[in-house]
Amino acid sequence: MIKVVLLGSGNVASHLANALASAANVDLLQRYGRSERNNSFFDSGIPFTTHLNALQKADVYIIAINDDSIEGFSKSVEHLKGLVVHTSGSVPMAAIDNKLRKGVLYPVQTFSKGKALDFKLVPLALETENEDDYRLLYELGTSISDVVIRVNSSQREKLHLSAVFANNFSNYMFLTAKDICDDHDLSFDILRPIILETAQKIMNTDPLIAQTGPARRNDSKVIEKQLLSLEGEKKEIYRVLTNAIKKRYQR
Amino acid sequence: MIKVVLLGSGNVASHLANALASAANVDLLQRYGRSERNNSFFDSGIPFTTHLNALQKADVYIIAINDDSIEGFSKSVEHLKGLVVHTSGSVPMAAIDNKLRKGVLYPVQTFSKGKALDFKLVPLALETENEDDYRLLYELGTSISDVVIRVNSSQREKLHLSAVFANNFSNYMFLTAKDICDDHDLSFDILRPIILETAQKIMNTDPLIAQTGPARRNDSKVIEKQLLSLEGEKKEIYRVLTNAIKKRYQR
Repeated sequence: MIKVVLLGSGNVASHLANALASAANVDLLQRYGRSERNNSFFDSGIPFTTHLNALQKADVYIIAINDDSIEGFSKSVEHLKGLVVHTSGSVPMAAIDNKLRKGVLYPVQTFSKGKALDFKLVPLALETENEDDYRLLYELGTSISDVVIRVNSSQREKLHLSAVFANNFSNYMFLTAKDICDDHDLSFDILRPIILETAQKIMNTDPLIAQTGPARRNDSKVIEKQLLSLEGEKKEIYRVLTNAIKKRYQR
Repeated sequence: MIKVVLLGSGNVASHLANALASAANVDLLQRYGRSERNNSFFDSGIPFTTHLNALQKADVYIIAINDDSIEGFSKSVEHLKGLVVHTSGSVPMAAIDNKLRKGVLYPVQTFSKGKALDFKLVPLALETENEDDYRLLYELGTSISDVVIRVNSSQREKLHLSAVFANNFSNYMFLTAKDICDDHDLSFDILRPIILETAQKIMNTDPLIAQTGPARRNDSKVIEKQLLSLEGEKKEIYRVLTNAIKKRYQR
């Protein structure tokens, strides 16, 4: 049994808590939070503390808190003996205090509070300082997910960067589409099915094949007309993406 | 019963054919194609012709062909007496020859050959020249879809423009993410779950609320680092989208 203490009260922590609590060879000893806020999102059967000096002895401590707080927080637990990992895609492993055994367990997924999700399908990117710690973290990772990969710091940075495009920037495309709808008395509901289908297509299609639209077929008549109808940031986004798509397919 | 003749052999035509053939109050009399190519994607029970002078007399003719071909093709069927509609989001209704009764039935969805899809959930944006034709097209639209809206030419243009963002540009975000993965020995499979979850979240969340990431939280440390690691089109896309997101949330 791997003894785990979870530190955090946010979305990632709540999904991790469920996954850890139901894993066969994991003993989720305790969860720490600064306050009891958000406790309703957690199984009340998990022992909870707001006191850092009351942390149990564990094999792995998982810091699932805001990116900006990881470095400072790790200093406040520098007495811990187990492996201490954070869950961020963008924060360097080195942000964890040097007195600690360090690692990263980065779940490549977007989590929403209260929205269930099969954690077994969440890819986990693991990073540690040495082989022994990797074996421990790998054992923990594979107990909660079916998709575990080992990355180095540079690869994790690139993975996070690609997730910014796949998740954050695609969401902004949806938001821009909604803004256009809102400006022209069109319900955004009309676009929801095409958004879902676009993503579902990518589950078994290379996005290079799936690409369609005026830029892909270099339809300058439509492109000119659509550019003329836009202004400000939307126009610049349209121009930059259209040029990039045209260039990408000239390869 | 509304008598319909379908003209076309592509993705949209094949999905329309299935929907029309199974609609209770629609009689799909015939399908026209330039050749027998793609006939395997269509129900062999639908009478098929390659001869424009053999077209049956129908209430509605649906031209489901390439955008660029609509105008020219409509001239070759200017003898038809029924309502003639095209299915394009971006082509003006006026592209249909003036000797014909004109309309548009624009399915706001992305179709893949051979990939089943519940047509009842595909939003249809309808446009006609007059009320009588609208009533006819509305009756046809509601027999194959549960989501039918009336639009004018200007709204349809905006709807198509918003679909370019929601579908084409979001797919390009997925492609860019894959390119980054490919460049760094990371499997794109790692990103597929977050792509699906991003879209599924939007099914019941406003994208304005769903937006996350370095730009949303104005995390200049991560933004600077990610910008430095990019070059060319990817860098420009990152810069333009990050600035747009920052500005959008300053409102």
